[in-house]
Amino acid sequence: MIISMKLRATREEIDEVCEQVKQFGYKVHSIEGEERVVIGVVGVGDVTACMESIEAMPQVDNVVRISAPYKFVSREFRKEKTRIKVNGTEIGGDEFVVMAGPCSVESEKQIMQAAEAVAKAGAKLLRGGAFKPRTSPYDFQGMEEEGLKLLEKAKRATGLAIITEVMSERGVDLVAQYADVMQVGARNMQNFMLLKALGKCGRPVLLKRGLSSTVKELLMSAEYVTAHGNPDVILCERGIRTFETATRNTCDIAAIPVLNELTHLPVILDPSHATGKRSLVPAVSRAGVAIGADGLIVEVHPAPEKAMSDGAQSLDLAQFQKMMAELQPYLELWRESRKTQEAALSAGR
Amino acid sequence: MIISMKLRATREEIDEVCEQVKQFGYKVHSIEGEERVVIGVVGVGDVTACMESIEAMPQVDNVVRISAPYKFVSREFRKEKTRIKVNGTEIGGDEFVVMAGPCSVESEKQIMQAAEAVAKAGAKLLRGGAFKPRTSPYDFQGMEEEGLKLLEKAKRATGLAIITEVMSERGVDLVAQYADVMQVGARNMQNFMLLKALGKCGRPVLLKRGLSSTVKELLMSAEYVTAHGNPDVILCERGIRTFETATRNTCDIAAIPVLNELTHLPVILDPSHATGKRSLVPAVSRAGVAIGADGLIVEVHPAPEKAMSDGAQSLDLAQFQKMMAELQPYLELWRESRKTQEAALSAGR
Amino acid sequence: MIISMKLRATREEIDEVCEQVKQFGYKVHSIEGEERVVIGVVGVGDVTACMESIEAMPQVDNVVRISAPYKFVSREFRKEKTRIKVNGTEIGGDEFVVMAGPCSVESEKQIMQAAEAVAKAGAKLLRGGAFKPRTSPYDFQGMEEEGLKLLEKAKRATGLAIITEVMSERGVDLVAQYADVMQVGARNMQNFMLLKALGKCGRPVLLKRGLSSTVKELLMSAEYVTAHGNPDVILCERGIRTFETATRNTCDIAAIPVLNELTHLPVILDPSHATGKRSLVPAVSRAGVAIGADGLIVEVHPAPEKAMSDGAQSLDLAQFQKMMAELQPYLELWRESRKTQEAALSAGR
Amino acid sequence: MIISMKLRATREEIDEVCEQVKQFGYKVHSIEGEERVVIGVVGVGDVTACMESIEAMPQVDNVVRISAPYKFVSREFRKEKTRIKVNGTEIGGDEFVVMAGPCSVESEKQIMQAAEAVAKAGAKLLRGGAFKPRTSPYDFQGMEEEGLKLLEKAKRATGLAIITEVMSERGVDLVAQYADVMQVGARNMQNFMLLKALGKCGRPVLLKRGLSSTVKELLMSAEYVTAHGNPDVILCERGIRTFETATRNTCDIAAIPVLNELTHLPVILDPSHATGKRSLVPAVSRAGVAIGADGLIVEVHPAPEKAMSDGAQSLDLAQFQKMMAELQPYLELWRESRKTQEAALSAGR
Repeated sequence: MIISMKLRATREEIDEVCEQVKQFGYKVHSIEGEERVVIGVVGVGDVTACMESIEAMPQVDNVVRISAPYKFVSREFRKEKTRIKVNGTEIGGDEFVVMAGPCSVESEKQIMQAAEAVAKAGAKLLRGGAFKPRTSPYDFQGMEEEGLKLLEKAKRATGLAIITEVMSERGVDLVAQYADVMQVGARNMQNFMLLKALGKCGRPVLLKRGLSSTVKELLMSAEYVTAHGNPDVILCERGIRTFETATRNTCDIAAIPVLNELTHLPVILDPSHATGKRSLVPAVSRAGVAIGADGLIVEVHPAPEKAMSDGAQSLDLAQFQKMMAELQPYLELWRESRKTQEAALSAGR
Repeated sequence: MIISMKLRATREEIDEVCEQVKQFGYKVHSIEGEERVVIGVVGVGDVTACMESIEAMPQVDNVVRISAPYKFVSREFRKEKTRIKVNGTEIGGDEFVVMAGPCSVESEKQIMQAAEAVAKAGAKLLRGGAFKPRTSPYDFQGMEEEGLKLLEKAKRATGLAIITEVMSERGVDLVAQYADVMQVGARNMQNFMLLKALGKCGRPVLLKRGLSSTVKELLMSAEYVTAHGNPDVILCERGIRTFETATRNTCDIAAIPVLNELTHLPVILDPSHATGKRSLVPAVSRAGVAIGADGLIVEVHPAPEKAMSDGAQSLDLAQFQKMMAELQPYLELWRESRKTQEAALSAGR
Repeated sequence: MIISMKLRATREEIDEVCEQVKQFGYKVHSIEGEERVVIGVVGVGDVTACMESIEAMPQVDNVVRISAPYKFVSREFRKEKTRIKVNGTEIGGDEFVVMAGPCSVESEKQIMQAAEAVAKAGAKLLRGGAFKPRTSPYDFQGMEEEGLKLLEKAKRATGLAIITEVMSERGVDLVAQYADVMQVGARNMQNFMLLKALGKCGRPVLLKRGLSSTVKELLMSAEYVTAHGNPDVILCERGIRTFETATRNTCDIAAIPVLNELTHLPVILDPSHATGKRSLVPAVSRAGVAIGADGLIVEVHPAPEKAMSDGAQSLDLAQFQKMMAELQPYLELWRESRKTQEAALSAGR
Repeated sequence: MIISMKLRATREEIDEVCEQVKQFGYKVHSIEGEERVVIGVVGVGDVTACMESIEAMPQVDNVVRISAPYKFVSREFRKEKTRIKVNGTEIGGDEFVVMAGPCSVESEKQIMQAAEAVAKAGAKLLRGGAFKPRTSPYDFQGMEEEGLKLLEKAKRATGLAIITEVMSERGVDLVAQYADVMQVGARNMQNFMLLKALGKCGRPVLLKRGLSSTVKELLMSAEYVTAHGNPDVILCERGIRTFETATRNTCDIAAIPVLNELTHLPVILDPSHATGKRSLVPAVSRAGVAIGADGLIVEVHPAPEKAMSDGAQSLDLAQFQKMMAELQPYLELWRESRKTQEAALSAGR
């Protein structure tokens, strides 16, 4: 932690700050610049509490944290990428994993059709919401447990693993009975009660980045889940909110290599929400493969124009199949590059 | 709803879209422009479902909603401002209401000191979190029920009403036993399960605007609470997230008159979170009074540099008292202007 | 400047960085933390060049600048607010200054009508663009020199000073013949060639904040003008670009007290561009007075629905007059508070 | 254009709006909804002037433009991608074009070394600024004409074409003597005087997207150049400004396929400014190739830690060579996909 004092802070004021820092168990090194004094803080202590306290002192201009605020999820804590086994598939491993399906489970026919088509095209997980977070209370809120049962049926029929959303602490037990992966939506990324409950749910968690959450905040939310007992967290870039309206969200593609530097957790891309527009999904998916994501989660619907939600960004079954076929040569390059990375890592970097 | 077709859409494609619209119970008016066809949709039906469906059709360029997506919270539904009675005080009425207190309840001494000071300075509600949503799992998470009990004690001692945060569906019953107003934090503004539960909690709700939520989304979240049975919602502008880092958030002050045009619900301002910096709180508070907010919620702590959270943005007791004194002439102007508005309203505008 | 090294940086790598820093004439203090080494840099040198160099070294994690990058415009350089005399009026002085008029000069009749009305209502400067920066090449680009001549005529008729926009280096001389204050539009805030030329124009400059410029960048642009010889710069908050679409821009009202802390330059508010909506202008103007701006610049048009630009955010003549009347009691409070500040300043704070 | 009237607008008010629209030469179709009246406007006229006028009328709620505001740059105007010939290379054609070199020209040795290395690695254009737009007046502002002469020398030695920045209207003639492509920096994207001058410069123009400019505004700025006589405009995505600070800017990768849908102009990616961090450049460049950009512009410096600007985001010569080698298999996929697209286009889509 580095504290910069206000210009013209007196010796007394500086000493007062140093004393306060020491009460948190730290040592201080003060550096007298031409313009102002800067205090370096070293040692082990409660960083946040100390920062909060120092920031509140009137003679202090600014406090900068140097150490990362997360631990379990950092690359420093663990060098190799976490591999998460789900129903015979490995996320974060040697294969690029595609999750696909409709935004919402709407009927048995719809989900079975979608499941069969995405399985055939190469997806390994079936997505589909039974509980839907909708901006309006008047919109379709999902089929709830009935939807979960249809997902289970689709799983039995196709062998696909199930990823589905859980919307609150209270819903965790029910969803965990059906889901292979528990999805946390963007609007719940900082629903800390939910994150704590997912720490104990016994299932991998897919954590979507919040609409205006920084990469660091995404990692902090993942840290909540791991610190409460569950190391199996998959991160998902799904676009952030900016001033641009040509796309539904702005796909922050560079967040993928940034996350790969900072964390060992797998990172996937949601090209459907990141763009909001069907015609852009294949191109953005290619970019996701090329940039080194661990997988994709894509909205696919047998009849997008009849979808109860997100139709405009859903591929139909033929479009999804075509996209998967076109991705193949990129996936080959992906596999080779993954092998090179692993060789480099095991050679000790 | 207005549908614009892609350039060069054929007669057949246009008819197909019109047919689809009619299935939702609407009538269509198609307008042939020089460049493209635009279809006007009128009547009563499920707007969202229809929009979702039409947006997903490939020959459609764009769909624009004309009618507001909210109903109960709109000025069209109710012309007079909603007045919410809390412990003898009225929010949205003839008096500007100040809520103040520490970010977190930390100890009996701390909360009692704060309560007495803010009551003396003119606050009517005591704020203080017992359950704290913190970005890091390692930070202080609040005193929980013990904190609620201390708030109750402070209420008995000072007569202040209590406003405190509820973080999840599961916590609603407990918090409702102690709180006069249930606060929903910015990160939970779209925790729809929580909003539904608050629709039945029997207490007024203070809904803070999400970090990257639009004014319209804030109103939709308020609509959740009202549509589930609770008309007593207070909205709170507390700054949004932008590129600017000179302040913790960017205070969207114009959202207050915007909301006053769109809704009859009371709107208050949180100058502490909106700026993140103690020295800016008095100036921003004055702006809030002048622009026509219904109240303020301010962080005040007996010893900000010892606060377990938000010390840098908390006023100490003397600073709060000074600020309240300096606000007095602005509050007089506020009262006069409120009277003028009411007279205009009752005269039928 | 504070340099934090990567985790696991070797002694050799640290020494290399220290050597590099010393080449810029600085001294270093290295602090060994539990996790990593942090290097404090003190002395006098070319900060930016040194930062650029150090940031580029692979073993460095992060470099944080401590000193402000601007000098002449800072409060440290000059404690008292700069007072800028314009045609008998003082900006930054004891009176709140209102500038008003149409977006564009469109005809003699229009500008004369506007000028007379705003002068009568209390404005001291007449605004009106003769050169218009328009997003589309097909939109009205202004009356150019003819427009400047009409402004001169209006000045003679009313005694109002003239503020008008200059769009490029090449236009400076011409505009300076007619303008009392040279206005730089938001899109030109970082047109550095223009800023340099304005350093030598011999007229005060009104610098509008860029759509996505930080407060610090605004100050750096002002520093360009002052460093090139012109100390008379007025800053203008006019709303920034965010995700919110309920208003044309987001009025960053807190930037005003932030700027008042950081700089001695006068700061005014443009409530018209900050909101884009006529109905919001009076409320936001009140907020600007209450928060301590030095003035307002407001769009006023004799017939907004006939305006060639910005009609939706322009007040008509009667609306402007009404607003000015309603501001009076707030302006009285403003004057009192200005006096208190000056007394405090001259007492030596 | 679609006009929605305010709720409760009277028949008279609606007629008034219709009359006003007709004065601009349009026809109107009014649609009576349950809640409000919507007016469709068709025909040919001055859209912007009409919109401005209507938006300013008090009984109007909202006006939505349907037709695109640009013409020459749109895909409707021209179906095939514009191919721009530069010194024997074609941008927008059958080959992916890489432009590379230092941020600034700093010395003969530096630019010659850079030029030789990037030519050898496969770049076709040499970038290097002689006029530098710097946030601070105290930072290195470029070698000016001397820098241009060094670029010419490097061109003679290597055969590379030259792309270099022009900062103002006044500098156009000078830069055009040396440059093969005239670069407009992000901060000048809406410097309309410069854009007009570039319409007549007789050289292709590379237009960088502004920090907070929408895709539509980028196209409007390109329209300025084309409408003033120069059809050879290359667009460049270089990251936008958002709340995220993990990267210098946020790379809006989806803007590339969005632009490919909307315009026939070539679109390239600047992975250096888009990320601000050397380690991210290769991954983001791969994404750029995979998503279908027409080229890259990359910062490369012989000794980044000695660079006078942008060292942290510059690759050194070996890193650039390595990146180019690793891009090869992606470039092969790019060529195949380009052929398929062309075949599809010539088959008449």
